[in-house]
Amino acid sequence: MLSLRRYRHCAACGALVQYRVPTEDNRERAICVDCGQIHYENPTNVVGTLPLAPDGRVLLCRRAIEPQRGLWTLPAGFMELGESVAEGALRETLEEAGARVALDGLLSVLSVPRIGQVHLFFRARLLDLDFAPGPESLDVALFAWDQLPWDTLAFRTVRKTLEHQQGGGAALLIDTL
Amino acid sequence: MLSLRRYRHCAACGALVQYRVPTEDNRERAICVDCGQIHYENPTNVVGTLPLAPDGRVLLCRRAIEPQRGLWTLPAGFMELGESVAEGALRETLEEAGARVALDGLLSVLSVPRIGQVHLFFRARLLDLDFAPGPESLDVALFAWDQLPWDTLAFRTVRKTLEHQQGGGAALLIDTL
Ligand SMILES: [Zn+2]
Ligand SMILES: [Zn+2]
Repeated sequence: MLSLRRYRHCAACGALVQYRVPTEDNRERAICVDCGQIHYENPTNVVGTLPLAPDGRVLLCRRAIEPQRGLWTLPAGFMELGESVAEGALRETLEEAGARVALDGLLSVLSVPRIGQVHLFFRARLLDLDFAPGPESLDVALFAWDQLPWDTLAFRTVRKTLEHQQGGGAALLIDTL
Repeated sequence: MLSLRRYRHCAACGALVQYRVPTEDNRERAICVDCGQIHYENPTNVVGTLPLAPDGRVLLCRRAIEPQRGLWTLPAGFMELGESVAEGALRETLEEAGARVALDGLLSVLSVPRIGQVHLFFRARLLDLDFAPGPESLDVALFAWDQLPWDTLAFRTVRKTLEHQQGGGAALLIDTL
């Protein structure tokens, strides 16, 4: 696993931290050498949608930012404090693709332990075709399923989610990548 | 919403942070006044199981720790770096209830924006009945569905998940509490 440790200093008082196992815990945490505060580090959620047009085509975004600039992805991004999983997925779809959708249930929950993330995608219906790339996208386009850009997809979680939907997508896909 | 802000000092260099909106962002982040590092804060996942015995009874734990000490809960806890959602749920079930289970699919995904959490529960089958309370539990017991301790449950997400399973639990429950 990559080191996902983020603390060198205490977020409360600014003193140095040491990574060690606190009493009554069983893994190393960032503990402040001065005030003693324990800083926990946990996986983050990436939330997004697989937006379908009435004719069955799927909406993809071409990334304007790193990582994977220039490659195609489903609209998705980090879930924010103060929102639900569903609200986050709707917000990211609007921000990245300028698209308004209705959610049709959860399609995939994909853990990516190596980078400390969980990716959650909803199946969604486009409410209109007035989409447009947001600041993080170079382009937004609808693709027929036999013309998906499989060779230029940005992320494995996007590929897995597209493959699952292509196969019917009946059951929720829960997997680890 | 509660303030969920955790940073007063920079985790990289220890200088003070200010909360302001970075260029090309749309919400306030903790930004170091010295080294400029941006510290993102995102919701955390709580993962657990609803363990069922062969006779249909459900396993609950009575909490030995705050919050809600003394009340009954499903085995669950914070997902850790380096594990998948499923691995976290299995680990928490073992740690809190000393129980070995097989997962039978995701039962609920419950966002709790007020506290910046997402709770994910799997339906699970107990592989044996050799369970025992871990350090965070006062007691572990099997309950018939008509004898569940509804009045002394620890958390609303636990109640919602139990109610969903009691109602059949066919579809995945996605909700916000
Ligand atoms: Zn400190
Ligand atoms: Zn700094």
